[in-house]
Amino acid sequence: MRVVVALGGNALLRRGEKMTAENQRKNARLAAEALAPLYDVGHEVVITHGNGPQVGLLALQGAAYEHVEAYPLDVLGAETVGMIGYMIEQELGNLLPYEKPFATILTQVEVDPNDPAFHDPTKPIGPLYSKEDAERLAEEKGWSIREDGDKWRRVVPSPMPKHIFEIRPIKWLLDHDVLVIAAGGGGIPTMYNEEKKLVGVECVIDKDRCSGLLAKEIDADVYIMATDADAVYLDWGTPSQRAIKSASPDALDAYGFAAGSMGPKVEAAQTFARETGKQAVICALSDVPQAIVGEKGTTIAMNAGDTAFY
Amino acid sequence: MRVVVALGGNALLRRGEKMTAENQRKNARLAAEALAPLYDVGHEVVITHGNGPQVGLLALQGAAYEHVEAYPLDVLGAETVGMIGYMIEQELGNLLPYEKPFATILTQVEVDPNDPAFHDPTKPIGPLYSKEDAERLAEEKGWSIREDGDKWRRVVPSPMPKHIFEIRPIKWLLDHDVLVIAAGGGGIPTMYNEEKKLVGVECVIDKDRCSGLLAKEIDADVYIMATDADAVYLDWGTPSQRAIKSASPDALDAYGFAAGSMGPKVEAAQTFARETGKQAVICALSDVPQAIVGEKGTTIAMNAGDTAFY
Repeated sequence: MRVVVALGGNALLRRGEKMTAENQRKNARLAAEALAPLYDVGHEVVITHGNGPQVGLLALQGAAYEHVEAYPLDVLGAETVGMIGYMIEQELGNLLPYEKPFATILTQVEVDPNDPAFHDPTKPIGPLYSKEDAERLAEEKGWSIREDGDKWRRVVPSPMPKHIFEIRPIKWLLDHDVLVIAAGGGGIPTMYNEEKKLVGVECVIDKDRCSGLLAKEIDADVYIMATDADAVYLDWGTPSQRAIKSASPDALDAYGFAAGSMGPKVEAAQTFARETGKQAVICALSDVPQAIVGEKGTTIAMNAGDTAFY
Repeated sequence: MRVVVALGGNALLRRGEKMTAENQRKNARLAAEALAPLYDVGHEVVITHGNGPQVGLLALQGAAYEHVEAYPLDVLGAETVGMIGYMIEQELGNLLPYEKPFATILTQVEVDPNDPAFHDPTKPIGPLYSKEDAERLAEEKGWSIREDGDKWRRVVPSPMPKHIFEIRPIKWLLDHDVLVIAAGGGGIPTMYNEEKKLVGVECVIDKDRCSGLLAKEIDADVYIMATDADAVYLDWGTPSQRAIKSASPDALDAYGFAAGSMGPKVEAAQTFARETGKQAVICALSDVPQAIVGEKGTTIAMNAGDTAFY
């Protein structure tokens, strides 16, 4: 089977952990251990990943060094996918046979300049500021800012991914049995400007959406979102919470999932299942091998019917 | 023809220029304009590039932000190849037909732990320090340091590249007519530790050596090193300076070229020509298309015979 696995941001950096290279490598190693069994059963694998905390750190480091103006988001994103791809590739390479080929591919993603998200920046990025500092930076750099607790943060748009430029190379590599790492951080956001030139954009593409589009475009059989929850839950955090085993996209429409939590993953899973007729799975990273065969996690598929619970 | 073009560090950042994203993008655009004609004549192209100034900036930014320990060189290198590959890919993509596929591939390179370079670190990296600061950092972090004018700098080993892990994916992509960007910064230096695990190494691989190894391994017909000089000169900077048009590797053995200038390029060209029987070219970036056909630059080839001058 052809499988896309999207690693959640905290697969590479657990909450509260310091963002040292060592911690990230340790977590990349754990992710590699969780994913290595996919090789044993002969799957073709593409790994995608988030980059929120890593972009945040580069932004902080860039701001701390005042002699060169901090880089825009597309450039910082490109830096993080080199770093994260390297760690995953190296750690997974250490677990699989020497002969297995790997490729980490920089992925540019086109967004639509008319996407409504550009009128409503919602995605917080980078450090927390005092109100005064945030307002000064907004003035100086043209940032949008928004209150975050008792501090302020920069917010950027999160438009829909429209087109992934590197689909053909990724498919060709999979045909040669290469394990591919791609679409890191939701891909590098780009758009065509008025002169029909492709340029970087100061925004963030949702990783789960982009990975779902990638899975569709490369004709993946399964799209897996690996996170820190073992399934999608109803009534999460209440005495009546129930873990969903399987459901059709339509069955999931009946519920509401928090935008800051499972909402984007459920939406990405529904879209993939509806547009391809194939199954999407949301599960814990360590459960990926069993989740592919429906024994763990939440499976979303057109033929899954009503919601079934564990 | 299958062509490898190595872009010198100052192809992406001219001497004295501030290392803003904007300046790097402007230079990436100029490089793209110089290389776009290779597509028109139907060559298969791999572009490699340096990353010295970019790694230096990341090291400075990392040091300026004290809350997270600065990342090791292999990780910083991986960050820069994402960024530089992105800029080259995007700018070149804007000049070539929409249908042309591109891939920027992270490249891990194996070095030998017994390489004598590890006993003699010579490659300066990162910022200039006062003697006191340099000695404190050397003590704290186990760095080697060396005097540089009236300041001090960290120096790291520059071992020989032994093996490039991503050769097969790169060849498969070239077979599909993909323009490949790879081996950025001489590749990410790695070695096998005592547990037979591949790990990153705090060193720098010479970009021209690594690109030459890549060119050999992918059976390139020409290996081009694009720099800011229009040819290799004898007696450079003297009234009798002469530009070399062509020479055999053995003919070049008669001369000495400065280690800090043309030396590494000439050595890489000699090695490629000797090991493959194909030609290597050293030329100005803007002359690449004419240099391939021997009209500009310095061509080094087994059948070139004695040194010929312009």
